[in-house]
Amino acid sequence: MVGAGQLARMTYQASIPLRVGFRVLADTATDSAAQVCADVRLGDYHNLGDLLAFAAGCDVVTFDHEHVPEEHLAALEAAGVPLAPGGGALRYTQDKLAMRAELTRLGVPCPRFTPVADVADVTRFAEQAGWPIVLKAVRGGYDGRGVWVCDDAFAAGEVLAHGIALLAEEYVPFRRELAALVARSPHRQGAAYPVVETVQRDGVCHEVLAPAPGLSAALAEDAQRLALEIADALGVTGLLAVELFEAGGGLLVNELAMRPHNSGHWTIEGAVTSQFEQHLRAVLDLPLGAPRPAAGQTVMVNVFGGQDPDLYDKYIHVMAADPGMKVHLYGKAVRPGRKIGHVTVTGSGAGEQNLAALRDRALRAASYLATGKERGE
Amino acid sequence: MVGAGQLARMTYQASIPLRVGFRVLADTATDSAAQVCADVRLGDYHNLGDLLAFAAGCDVVTFDHEHVPEEHLAALEAAGVPLAPGGGALRYTQDKLAMRAELTRLGVPCPRFTPVADVADVTRFAEQAGWPIVLKAVRGGYDGRGVWVCDDAFAAGEVLAHGIALLAEEYVPFRRELAALVARSPHRQGAAYPVVETVQRDGVCHEVLAPAPGLSAALAEDAQRLALEIADALGVTGLLAVELFEAGGGLLVNELAMRPHNSGHWTIEGAVTSQFEQHLRAVLDLPLGAPRPAAGQTVMVNVFGGQDPDLYDKYIHVMAADPGMKVHLYGKAVRPGRKIGHVTVTGSGAGEQNLAALRDRALRAASYLATGKERGE
Repeated sequence: MVGAGQLARMTYQASIPLRVGFRVLADTATDSAAQVCADVRLGDYHNLGDLLAFAAGCDVVTFDHEHVPEEHLAALEAAGVPLAPGGGALRYTQDKLAMRAELTRLGVPCPRFTPVADVADVTRFAEQAGWPIVLKAVRGGYDGRGVWVCDDAFAAGEVLAHGIALLAEEYVPFRRELAALVARSPHRQGAAYPVVETVQRDGVCHEVLAPAPGLSAALAEDAQRLALEIADALGVTGLLAVELFEAGGGLLVNELAMRPHNSGHWTIEGAVTSQFEQHLRAVLDLPLGAPRPAAGQTVMVNVFGGQDPDLYDKYIHVMAADPGMKVHLYGKAVRPGRKIGHVTVTGSGAGEQNLAALRDRALRAASYLATGKERGE
Repeated sequence: MVGAGQLARMTYQASIPLRVGFRVLADTATDSAAQVCADVRLGDYHNLGDLLAFAAGCDVVTFDHEHVPEEHLAALEAAGVPLAPGGGALRYTQDKLAMRAELTRLGVPCPRFTPVADVADVTRFAEQAGWPIVLKAVRGGYDGRGVWVCDDAFAAGEVLAHGIALLAEEYVPFRRELAALVARSPHRQGAAYPVVETVQRDGVCHEVLAPAPGLSAALAEDAQRLALEIADALGVTGLLAVELFEAGGGLLVNELAMRPHNSGHWTIEGAVTSQFEQHLRAVLDLPLGAPRPAAGQTVMVNVFGGQDPDLYDKYIHVMAADPGMKVHLYGKAVRPGRKIGHVTVTGSGAGEQNLAALRDRALRAASYLATGKERGE
């Protein structure tokens, strides 16, 4: 796996019972996954030589992120290195304009969009789509970075001044955000997880509710089918996470990711097969595991760093306060606002009250780990 | 952790989300846990120098097995190395005569027993307890090794001819075998898992049914209380597994282990806190996790090596046949009869039919992994 962040760390855990040999390409020996893997190679994923040396002896190479340059992906494939997903599929996670164009060609419902080069382009688009509009970096955005909601031409001009390639999208007044996670293997086996609700703050995922509460069976099935169809059409090997807006009684595709995804961390405890095991199975062309839930309801909440770099006391208090809370720490140095872990809690029921209690427990634990305080204190 | 077998391998997995630094002392780099741990030290646990070098810089030292010589445990403690469990507790897993004497002193129900030095001793004991009697090695037995059921004085004489220290025990015509797994922390917090039934063949655990089907609430509570009391009385830190006979409407203690135990592998999927996470929490004096079940019924079946050293095709077939089966392989070379992994399956119901179906699935998968055949083929 190229990249040694928390996704590689959790994928490594899943590789152990499967008896899968696992090597990671890390920037430094202190990277999240590099701390725990037995086979760590240090190198720079921007450097083709490092990538080729890393891949030597691997049956297949997969990715913790989508930042390996497109030309290096092509060069690896030309050198006979099997990539999963391949460069042809990964392209749609690296270039949002290509993604939007391809999904539109496939008839997948998306927000209206257009490439923009100057304020006149944005204004023309806004005359049809209405203000506010959303500007997005064509390349390199994630976790809310590279996304700007603009109320007027002046705000758009400030974003355009960054001098990066941009597209404009209509602003969708969505009811909520959903995510559909599927896996696809080279044998074209597919598996679809229950559709979840993701609760964002400032464009960053904070909570995941699995399954999405109150989602109609018809919409859930639509979302799963859509994700499986996109995975097939784009030739994805491994996981595909499709971030969706629920709006106007239907679904619109927001973003794609082709790797284990934050919206799937709940599957470690909440599904029969975790997304990390599933990604390995798909990438290695093993039969896929059952994606069905292992609990009635699961809530995952991300843990962000607070001011205090020392987590230890807070970690003990959370364990003592809630013995059923599953705490996952990524081994990352604490910095304010940095994603350093997550907590997960499962419940047997499926009712609203039960969900509210689970969310309360998980939000408390995550807040306490970050700040040493209960929420609202 | 001293020892790098599958117990250390699975404990290592559990250490990753807890962000616990984990070092293993392995005989060779190909040991089960040495294949996956990031911090492996090679050395011989029979050698005090190796043990002291290994322990340097560790906050606490725990064990994958009970074979570290008693005098080395004492020397480590004299050198200020914190052991969990300590040498005073581990003694009762190393010396079956000391264990029987101490449990009897504590009023814990056990089979009748006596040390024996010659055939006359055995015959005298059998006159009271009746034939057959059970001879056990005082030291070093496990997984059915070091246990002999003797029908008469002649058979006993053959065992005595080995020249090892032995005790004789009455042969208990038990209804079934149970196991009670508890954890105890230095703060004296305790946690008791649901009592399970263990199904043995030739003294080796084959199946674990969790919770033990049809066990009365009163007996289950007795078993849990007994295990917690023994843990407290012996000063155990970490896990204590108490193997029990259900006989004559009551319980008798058969064996003790103070480490993660085969009868607790089901907890990885079947309990909110796995035994491996619980052992780490107890050993590090962190608050214990909830031991409650995460599923209605869980069945674990051990996988033993067959004739074919190559597992790959069988592994794929098992995954394809049963996408809900959790396969755990230990990275051990296949040898006939060697424990190389286990499979676990969970179900939501608790009825007898449901249990029979789960057992059938797990036994099929384990049989297929071993032999490439369905059971009975």
